[in-house]
Amino acid sequence: MQQKLNIVPFVSVDHMMKLVHRVGVETFLIELAGEIETDFRRWESFDKVARIPAHSQEGVIELMPTTDGEVYGFKYVNGHPKNTRAGRQTVTAFGLLADMATGYPLMLSEMTMLTALRTAAMSALAAKYLARDDARTMAIIGNGAQSEFQALAFKALLGVDKVRLYDIERSASVKCARNLAGAGIDCVICETAEEAVMGADIVTTVTADKLNATILTDNMIGPGIHINAVGGDSPGKTELHPDILLRSSIFVEYPPQTRIEGEIQQLPADHAVTELWSVMSGRAPGRQGRDEITLFDSVGFAVEDFSALRYVRSKLLETGLFEELDLLADPDEPRDLFGMLMRAKAPRMVA
Amino acid sequence: MQQKLNIVPFVSVDHMMKLVHRVGVETFLIELAGEIETDFRRWESFDKVARIPAHSQEGVIELMPTTDGEVYGFKYVNGHPKNTRAGRQTVTAFGLLADMATGYPLMLSEMTMLTALRTAAMSALAAKYLARDDARTMAIIGNGAQSEFQALAFKALLGVDKVRLYDIERSASVKCARNLAGAGIDCVICETAEEAVMGADIVTTVTADKLNATILTDNMIGPGIHINAVGGDSPGKTELHPDILLRSSIFVEYPPQTRIEGEIQQLPADHAVTELWSVMSGRAPGRQGRDEITLFDSVGFAVEDFSALRYVRSKLLETGLFEELDLLADPDEPRDLFGMLMRAKAPRMVA
Repeated sequence: MQQKLNIVPFVSVDHMMKLVHRVGVETFLIELAGEIETDFRRWESFDKVARIPAHSQEGVIELMPTTDGEVYGFKYVNGHPKNTRAGRQTVTAFGLLADMATGYPLMLSEMTMLTALRTAAMSALAAKYLARDDARTMAIIGNGAQSEFQALAFKALLGVDKVRLYDIERSASVKCARNLAGAGIDCVICETAEEAVMGADIVTTVTADKLNATILTDNMIGPGIHINAVGGDSPGKTELHPDILLRSSIFVEYPPQTRIEGEIQQLPADHAVTELWSVMSGRAPGRQGRDEITLFDSVGFAVEDFSALRYVRSKLLETGLFEELDLLADPDEPRDLFGMLMRAKAPRMVA
Repeated sequence: MQQKLNIVPFVSVDHMMKLVHRVGVETFLIELAGEIETDFRRWESFDKVARIPAHSQEGVIELMPTTDGEVYGFKYVNGHPKNTRAGRQTVTAFGLLADMATGYPLMLSEMTMLTALRTAAMSALAAKYLARDDARTMAIIGNGAQSEFQALAFKALLGVDKVRLYDIERSASVKCARNLAGAGIDCVICETAEEAVMGADIVTTVTADKLNATILTDNMIGPGIHINAVGGDSPGKTELHPDILLRSSIFVEYPPQTRIEGEIQQLPADHAVTELWSVMSGRAPGRQGRDEITLFDSVGFAVEDFSALRYVRSKLLETGLFEELDLLADPDEPRDLFGMLMRAKAPRMVA
């Protein structure tokens, strides 16, 4: 995209929502999963680092950078479970792409909406390799901001057409079912987590509390289940009883980060896990039998955000769904930054 | 500042320049140095980490986060010396403040201009403790985008009223002298670096090449000089001959970062250095005698950007010099992010 040197295209929340509808939610999820899959297959071309956290008692703020050598991307994201009490999101995010050759930003974008979409796309993409081919029923435990995105992604990518909903607040399940009405997904609201997992081929846990919870106990997981564990993603924040982990084949994004943040923080540091990129690139098997219990210990990795930002950027020109942000100083002569400042002191300087 | 939950105040380049003029450049530099000094005196209250770099052959992109437990700040900054050939800045930057209690961003700001200002404020602040009290003449070697800011900060904070300019491109020195005309600083353009340092009490090096250069050789530095080494700030990017380092009392911002990026990357990892915060808080001496050679091995640390962003934020309400950015999703009910997306699919959805 040609641009004035001082301008960075900015995708606001409003523009992101319009973009999603322009493309169509399910198409967006399918195409986004495709971008993530492509990038996971070239995993070794990325500089990878565990995200950089700043913890407080209430939550965490994280920076998630990566680069493929040509394009640089990072996401700012927070996780503050108590935020909903004051009308705020648990997770908000924004991100940036930049050109490695110049260091100049290429696009700034909201990523609260985009993170919900990419997390769901990543979950469904992993399940394509890990769930049974005939999986059509999914339990979703935790029916907050991410639940509908998860349901739609699994419908779009795997054909899941039945979800069994459970939340400690029934109103969240009602909201989720109402939002999914008309989406071609049969929703059943359950009274307990035990009830929700009955008959489910896939179990998605996406709760928000920042503590070691036991959303799933060992007896709830029968043979052949695929577990999509989304909510446990921070030190001290897990959702599964460790006995489940010991019976599962565990798949992760980036082990150095997942061992700190994921369900496997409950296991010894040398417990065997399989990296998803190696499954996607054919170097390691995914599911190996109908009775195998597979677990995607999802924490979210920078490469997924990189893929998502690149996908959004690829749509900017055709849709025009961005605004121009005066983010970069661009003096007429590059070494004359101070002269630019001085010339701004014109009679019309008052705002 | 009260704000709608979806809105983050954004300070554009234009607004930043207006703010600088509203306050006055020298007052801005003095007040900014005061903020940095205050934060350095409470150094131990900050979470500190060496900045996170992504290197390419052409340059580097870095993230610089820190927090005092209440407010979080980070800066995105690049360093690409060849950029000026294509009309771009060597260094561009932007930054963000956020509330640690909620993870919500408080302000997004351009920082290309602000980084030049804070780097100069930091340099002059360090020199207040390290240069001789009667220092009035400064050599500036490297007369690019940062040189005038350095000159003005040293005038504002130390009373430096004579600068001796040298650059491998004379046109840069001419530009610098022209920009400083009327600022109350006597400018002398020199033909060599050797000539520039003659009679100087303070020597500032602020060149841009990404390589181990020798801008200053040992014989150029006499007793009593304060060296303000700004340009060497990346692995493999230094400006001073190591013999100068061995004769100098060396002061640094954050040793784990400076040992990687500063002039002292040329020295053994256990070479004694003094942390500037301990000088500012009275725990360690600054200059100890007229003949001592002092060196501020400046690389730039996250706390300085934190101070600068907080200073800018403190001016927003009274000046109104910001715009409102629709950066955060804010559904009516926080768990209903998906419902917000669905409701955006209104008849008026087309941009």
